[in-house]
Amino acid sequence: MIQPIDPSDLNYDKLMEIVKKIPILQSAVSIINWDMETKMPPKGITLRSNQLALLSGIEHKMTTNPIIGNLLEKIENHPNFVTFDSIRKRNIYLIRKNYNEQTKLPENLVVETERQRAITIGVWKKAKTLNKFSLFKPELEKLVELKKRAAEFLMDVKGVHKPYDALIDIFEPGVTSAIISNVFNNLKRGLIPILNKCLSSSKQPDISILRRKIPIEIQRRISILITKFFGYDVTSEKAGGRIDETEHPFTTGYYDDVRITTHYYADNFSSSLFSILHEVGHALYEQNLPPKWIYQPIGESCSLGFHEFQSRLVENIIGRSTEFWTYFYPTLKEMTKDKFSHVKLNDFVHAINLVQPSKIRIEADEITYCLHIIIRFEIEQDLIAGRIEVEELPDIWNQKYATYLGVKIENNSEGVMQDTHWASAIYGYFPTYALGNIYSGQIISTMEKEVPLWRTEISEGNFQNIKQWLINNVHKYGNLYNPQDLLKKITGEGINIGPYLNYLDAKYSQLYDY
Amino acid sequence: MIQPIDPSDLNYDKLMEIVKKIPILQSAVSIINWDMETKMPPKGITLRSNQLALLSGIEHKMTTNPIIGNLLEKIENHPNFVTFDSIRKRNIYLIRKNYNEQTKLPENLVVETERQRAITIGVWKKAKTLNKFSLFKPELEKLVELKKRAAEFLMDVKGVHKPYDALIDIFEPGVTSAIISNVFNNLKRGLIPILNKCLSSSKQPDISILRRKIPIEIQRRISILITKFFGYDVTSEKAGGRIDETEHPFTTGYYDDVRITTHYYADNFSSSLFSILHEVGHALYEQNLPPKWIYQPIGESCSLGFHEFQSRLVENIIGRSTEFWTYFYPTLKEMTKDKFSHVKLNDFVHAINLVQPSKIRIEADEITYCLHIIIRFEIEQDLIAGRIEVEELPDIWNQKYATYLGVKIENNSEGVMQDTHWASAIYGYFPTYALGNIYSGQIISTMEKEVPLWRTEISEGNFQNIKQWLINNVHKYGNLYNPQDLLKKITGEGINIGPYLNYLDAKYSQLYDY
Repeated sequence: MIQPIDPSDLNYDKLMEIVKKIPILQSAVSIINWDMETKMPPKGITLRSNQLALLSGIEHKMTTNPIIGNLLEKIENHPNFVTFDSIRKRNIYLIRKNYNEQTKLPENLVVETERQRAITIGVWKKAKTLNKFSLFKPELEKLVELKKRAAEFLMDVKGVHKPYDALIDIFEPGVTSAIISNVFNNLKRGLIPILNKCLSSSKQPDISILRRKIPIEIQRRISILITKFFGYDVTSEKAGGRIDETEHPFTTGYYDDVRITTHYYADNFSSSLFSILHEVGHALYEQNLPPKWIYQPIGESCSLGFHEFQSRLVENIIGRSTEFWTYFYPTLKEMTKDKFSHVKLNDFVHAINLVQPSKIRIEADEITYCLHIIIRFEIEQDLIAGRIEVEELPDIWNQKYATYLGVKIENNSEGVMQDTHWASAIYGYFPTYALGNIYSGQIISTMEKEVPLWRTEISEGNFQNIKQWLINNVHKYGNLYNPQDLLKKITGEGINIGPYLNYLDAKYSQLYDY
Repeated sequence: MIQPIDPSDLNYDKLMEIVKKIPILQSAVSIINWDMETKMPPKGITLRSNQLALLSGIEHKMTTNPIIGNLLEKIENHPNFVTFDSIRKRNIYLIRKNYNEQTKLPENLVVETERQRAITIGVWKKAKTLNKFSLFKPELEKLVELKKRAAEFLMDVKGVHKPYDALIDIFEPGVTSAIISNVFNNLKRGLIPILNKCLSSSKQPDISILRRKIPIEIQRRISILITKFFGYDVTSEKAGGRIDETEHPFTTGYYDDVRITTHYYADNFSSSLFSILHEVGHALYEQNLPPKWIYQPIGESCSLGFHEFQSRLVENIIGRSTEFWTYFYPTLKEMTKDKFSHVKLNDFVHAINLVQPSKIRIEADEITYCLHIIIRFEIEQDLIAGRIEVEELPDIWNQKYATYLGVKIENNSEGVMQDTHWASAIYGYFPTYALGNIYSGQIISTMEKEVPLWRTEISEGNFQNIKQWLINNVHKYGNLYNPQDLLKKITGEGINIGPYLNYLDAKYSQLYDY
């Protein structure tokens, strides 16, 4: 007997054919953005802002196409909808969520934000070089206003009560500023004692070794070896990745074309080392999403917190571990000739794990890192709520750095203008770095039960079992679950700072002998 | 008294606001294409072909938007249309032409061609490396079929009687294969005697000097110095250009973001030298189009023949002249250390002007170059007319090379697969290289009357007056005229091979002492 054709299925296929275009367009736009950051001649910025504005309008029209709304209704209201499997249901859920949200945003707001974003990034770069916040200020003000308007439009449909929560939801669905505040307060309380024990320990590393000059050409070769270790291919004829150089490292891409960037400083080689490790963590996630789900909403990553869990895992838990360097240190020594021939492994590992309050987030140690995030979270929250103005940012930034980290910020380039996020219209993202750290603690302690020898394996140059575990337990689910649900599925619990603090305490008590 | 509002003007402004988006989108797509050629990880090709197909569909929808048709009709039928100035009239003409043509093409044909183009380029690269035409053949067959269908759709609306003429018209509006055949026959008759005199001359250059190894890093620096000479900026903070490396050199871009590519071979430095010169000629044209006309149809270049006139001018008439090397040779000597210290200027200039039938078009001398073009023109004509099939291409290619140039092609990589054009869906373009040469003869002999000392100026390192003359007589007109009209406006006559042959004869009789 021939199965009768189910009209809800037919509409589903039709809908999927239409929404498939969205990630294809987005991935094209991400190339245009990558080019703007890495290759574009400086004079091209006005043309580029027009291109991005136009494309954002096209994307908005595509995502708010009434045909999508009509098909969604037909599918959702069909009696057979309940028989859909979880995959189709999740696709419908994600399409509905995006459709409802995007239709709330006026097209001109979307287009204007995109144009302003491109311009603000250009000005930020110049202002950072010249250490001139006054140059950055007027463009940032326009951008913040546009983002505030977007946040207000999204509040209702996202079911949140604060504009800032609407922005957080873009990156970490289901998590609010209230949840984050609570988690961050406890986290701070857990970190401060570890910080103080490290600072007051008599055992301190010699970090001058990290200032030894390594020619940039050598650093580039080291980067490639690191990507090889993790199986992120940037050199072969089948490579799906590449490394370029930007002031601010980032990862962008989709499935078979995922690119990372870094920066090289001859007298600070560890900067590129750890930014490469960080971005490789992101890239592995994107590259190992389930190929069968490409172009479907479920074929995307779960959340930015889950992204940061993996970047921080590769950068820190693995990349700053004694085990990784047991394997990789001989290579580093060989590549850098005589630079480290007399430096013992333990001294090197302690040096790259120096705990010391500092100015630059992306170069912060694991203990103080979350304090950098907490500062940004508090400022963003007040900025989007309208409690502080853009012009106050430098003063507030510097005050918080003095209070939380005891650090005096001398100029805005290494203060409030250090990160690209605010210039790039990315608000509500920062908390995901700290959430990622917390998730990493929980997820690794789960993984440990199934891959008990992972540390030994790393020291033997074997990342394969960890990678496979991540594929089986994280990557393969794509965006099938909201982050809190995926966390629960993997670890059996909600956000819990315990395992991360335990990991830190175990690691640093050994390093600092406290 | 307030001027009454003219509804034809209002509609004109409205129309211009709509069509402005077309070049913005096209310039974004050109970045995506540039990236595919220069930076994309190999694995990204399927995703890329989907991106390009999608964008081509969006562009097609944009250019065939019925609102454009409605506005055009209102403007054209309005009694005040006759009072429009020539600029507005030309914009309307160009918008109408494009609208009528694009609406003839089915969207699925446009999208499928674009997808197939990306795939065919990828396969061509691989097939060329492996010297395997059989790999290339099936994809090329699909692409040729798609282009034939497009050509048939366009014939009527373009008012031509052969499909191939419809393709030529895309690059050189108003020129047909009949005109070209006639011009090329005469050109061949003019070139053969010069060729024979050069070949039979007892004075022959020593070209072994051009095989001296120049490290690629040095060649890269020479490239930058050459771009500086012509005022194509790739290094400053206000640069509107850049140089990258591809197998097949090309120029792409729009106004403030115009990029060139080249290839470097350590034992063939003149290859990059002349490809850089060629592409700089293209780039200068694009960068110096009238800024006030950006995003308007008249703000584009006149034709590909006019483009090639300028690339061949910079590459050959200037770039292979004694005057250019009088100025630049000391720099080359210095950059390459001891490589040319004992080579006299005249011997170097003769070497870079060696006349010798060869296999590779882009490395051909000025006398045989047009024969390479004639071969391609004849093949394209037969291919699009269906008189020959893709599978016959290698044999026909090799036969023609034997007959016209007396050259034996040993493998298809340096034969029928040498150029990117056919893989890139570019048919009807090749003739414009020869037309460009012919235009260059005519236009330079006009310029000479107004800049009589241009050769002396070049030898003094001064390109300024030539550039200004080009801006005033070519660039500033953008796409205000059809190529034959612009040619007439500048030189007072139609296509005339005389000045180009005179230029060649004068130059080569001196070099070869005949």
